[in-house]
Amino acid sequence: MTTQPTPVDIDVTARALDRALHDQDLPTVRRRLSTLDVPAILDVGDRLEDRQRAVMFRLLSKDRALAVFEHMEPALQRELIRDLQGPEIADLFGALDPDDRVWLLDELPSALASRLLRGLPEIERLRTSAVLGYPAESVGRRMSAAVVPLHPESTAEQAIERIRARADDVETLTAIPVLDGSRHLIGIVDLGDLLRADPGTPVGRLMAEPRSAIATEDDERAARRCADLRATALPVVDAEGRLVGILSLSDAVRILEREEAEDLARQGGTEPLHRPYLSTPVRALVRSRIVWLLVLAVGATLTVQVLDVFEATLEEVTALALFVPLLIGTGGNTGNQAATTVTRALALGDVGARDVLRVLSREVRVGALMGALLGLIGAGITGWVYSPQLGLVIGLTLVAVCTVAASIGGMMPLVARAVKVDPAVFSNPFISTFVDATGLVVYFLIARAVLGI
Amino acid sequence: MTTQPTPVDIDVTARALDRALHDQDLPTVRRRLSTLDVPAILDVGDRLEDRQRAVMFRLLSKDRALAVFEHMEPALQRELIRDLQGPEIADLFGALDPDDRVWLLDELPSALASRLLRGLPEIERLRTSAVLGYPAESVGRRMSAAVVPLHPESTAEQAIERIRARADDVETLTAIPVLDGSRHLIGIVDLGDLLRADPGTPVGRLMAEPRSAIATEDDERAARRCADLRATALPVVDAEGRLVGILSLSDAVRILEREEAEDLARQGGTEPLHRPYLSTPVRALVRSRIVWLLVLAVGATLTVQVLDVFEATLEEVTALALFVPLLIGTGGNTGNQAATTVTRALALGDVGARDVLRVLSREVRVGALMGALLGLIGAGITGWVYSPQLGLVIGLTLVAVCTVAASIGGMMPLVARAVKVDPAVFSNPFISTFVDATGLVVYFLIARAVLGI
Repeated sequence: MTTQPTPVDIDVTARALDRALHDQDLPTVRRRLSTLDVPAILDVGDRLEDRQRAVMFRLLSKDRALAVFEHMEPALQRELIRDLQGPEIADLFGALDPDDRVWLLDELPSALASRLLRGLPEIERLRTSAVLGYPAESVGRRMSAAVVPLHPESTAEQAIERIRARADDVETLTAIPVLDGSRHLIGIVDLGDLLRADPGTPVGRLMAEPRSAIATEDDERAARRCADLRATALPVVDAEGRLVGILSLSDAVRILEREEAEDLARQGGTEPLHRPYLSTPVRALVRSRIVWLLVLAVGATLTVQVLDVFEATLEEVTALALFVPLLIGTGGNTGNQAATTVTRALALGDVGARDVLRVLSREVRVGALMGALLGLIGAGITGWVYSPQLGLVIGLTLVAVCTVAASIGGMMPLVARAVKVDPAVFSNPFISTFVDATGLVVYFLIARAVLGI
Repeated sequence: MTTQPTPVDIDVTARALDRALHDQDLPTVRRRLSTLDVPAILDVGDRLEDRQRAVMFRLLSKDRALAVFEHMEPALQRELIRDLQGPEIADLFGALDPDDRVWLLDELPSALASRLLRGLPEIERLRTSAVLGYPAESVGRRMSAAVVPLHPESTAEQAIERIRARADDVETLTAIPVLDGSRHLIGIVDLGDLLRADPGTPVGRLMAEPRSAIATEDDERAARRCADLRATALPVVDAEGRLVGILSLSDAVRILEREEAEDLARQGGTEPLHRPYLSTPVRALVRSRIVWLLVLAVGATLTVQVLDVFEATLEEVTALALFVPLLIGTGGNTGNQAATTVTRALALGDVGARDVLRVLSREVRVGALMGALLGLIGAGITGWVYSPQLGLVIGLTLVAVCTVAASIGGMMPLVARAVKVDPAVFSNPFISTFVDATGLVVYFLIARAVLGI
């Protein structure tokens, strides 16, 4: 079945295309391409460098080229456009869905963006600009303005006729919005229900209570609601509850995928790539990581200063140095665990900035419990291998560090949210670095007290 | 608009309900509940303890109770069922969609599961068992067996009639499968296209080339394809290409959400909760983290041993100890960055186990570049504050550590995939711990060489 080539097929074809493209052997490229369907071409394209992708793209028939372009990452679309000619671009751009168009426009230099917009037919341009009018990160920016609303008085029969007539404009066949005289959203109805119903039944009797999003609402929040309710689409209304567009589930998926990619990346201390790994130049990979790494390294100099302060203690009992990585490592891990869990809970809307105290009390208990367990084990082993006093130091430090780390790790994302920063930006590496310094201070204070230095 | 209560509303109501539930003040609970719609009740329920949720649930009208139950996390459904009576359970279970039912069954003890299955009406039981026949983690297990396929010879008119007649059984109105005489999937058609077409047109002329998933295929891979193609549903076929069911986009979303939750959790060194944070007992939180923490702590004892080996060197130049956290921290961060990026690329299917060499060469270059930059800065500052020799040691170590860390971090997920382990299990903390030990060895070897100890 060509609809799902095995990874091996794709790999082989990709390598072959790669070679053929390098050798400028266009006939082979063309032959290879003809054996692939659109998803396969997309997979192969994701593994090529920009210039090669552009060449490959030019060899596709017009309709296949469009199908491929439609499903590309906006970042790749941007590069492709850079390598194409004016008219080719205008065609591709014109054929995109209004909402795909906006994803792309967000990536393009504004000069090119407005030139492309001017090239659109009236109705398309209006729909696109309507969407562009809403702030970035809002549902309005991600919705489709192409909706065929129904009226409660019209019969199922009439409704079906209306949909039949304008089927091209319908974004979804389920969750069709029903409006009153002043365009207020009063319900949603599924085409399935219209078909099932007796033709004379008024739409008003078939419609369900509407779930909707407000156009200025945060796009992730609305997309999450659409997915959680397992709705196939969410009508979008203005502040007065008048219909302005619709967010289809696949648009919602796209928003959520992007948000989750960002959380995953930041949690690991990098900026998201928003493009396939193998298609990303090394310099771009470095760019996505170096700033984080520098910031974290600067933060880590704190640990050097802390150790500098306690150098005398270290000189006296060098053995203390042996446990530094173990202790701060454990602290970092505990902090990461808490931060990861709370960041995710925030993203899912399970907790909010208002839950600070509930989260804190939970994380303190979790940290203390785990610290107590690790502390016992650590104290036992160290006490046995080295000395009882040292064992006591390690044990006490583990309890303290785990408790502190879990609390800090759990609080950080909430603090971030409270100051309107992406919680994932106070990422795990960030928290480790912070916990490292704290842990060292605790460690040496306990050591001094117990060993009476 | 009750369809989207602000977080504050929900919080206030949640606290009020909380109190009322504690005080057994059921009238108040009932009054509060009556003001909330289903999504709001779900949000509130996510913030309650199990027993309270069960009480609240009992006070809901039958239909609202079902709507709420349908959208609950399977983990919460399980607990609810534990607190409910036989007949109540059977009703809820019977009213679920077949695929929601399977999510729940996967959570239940097999005795209860089979009892519930026996309680189902014939047709429902057959559909559910058909799905249960497929292995866990396969599309077959997540699809809906309720499909109304069309035949290529029937006209658009007839097709619409057929859908009308059996609209209850239709999982999706878009991507309706078209089968030949022997149930082989030969195309998919949208209801929209059927409506738009001239009534006499045969379905065969309206259908599009089918994209499908094989029932035994990995569910995440199929769900990802469904989302990437922005398809509203993906027909599911057996090895011979015969239709067995359909995976709707909202099922796909559910699969992806779960997989991403797991990756996020493991990347932070915890097991996924698969339930709202505030509804999770502290002991369950500890359980989701303690094993990881112990394993990582054991791994970290490696660093103690390494330092033990180099204790003489430390005694001689205590200053070396000051930089240990900074150096291993930077190494850990670099490793995390690479691991995070590659793990995500694997999940998206952008890279495969076969790309080991390509990934390695990229990560070596990225690591070396970043190490060189950090090394220059580190050497400069340390050389100026402490001593030129020490500066040289720090600089060289940073270059080496970053290169090694990026390579290890980039390889680990691929190794995991190659040995059929979830790449996210070789998580960031795991990699940090591993990189810590390696980094220390490099550090002290360079120090000895440069300082001639």
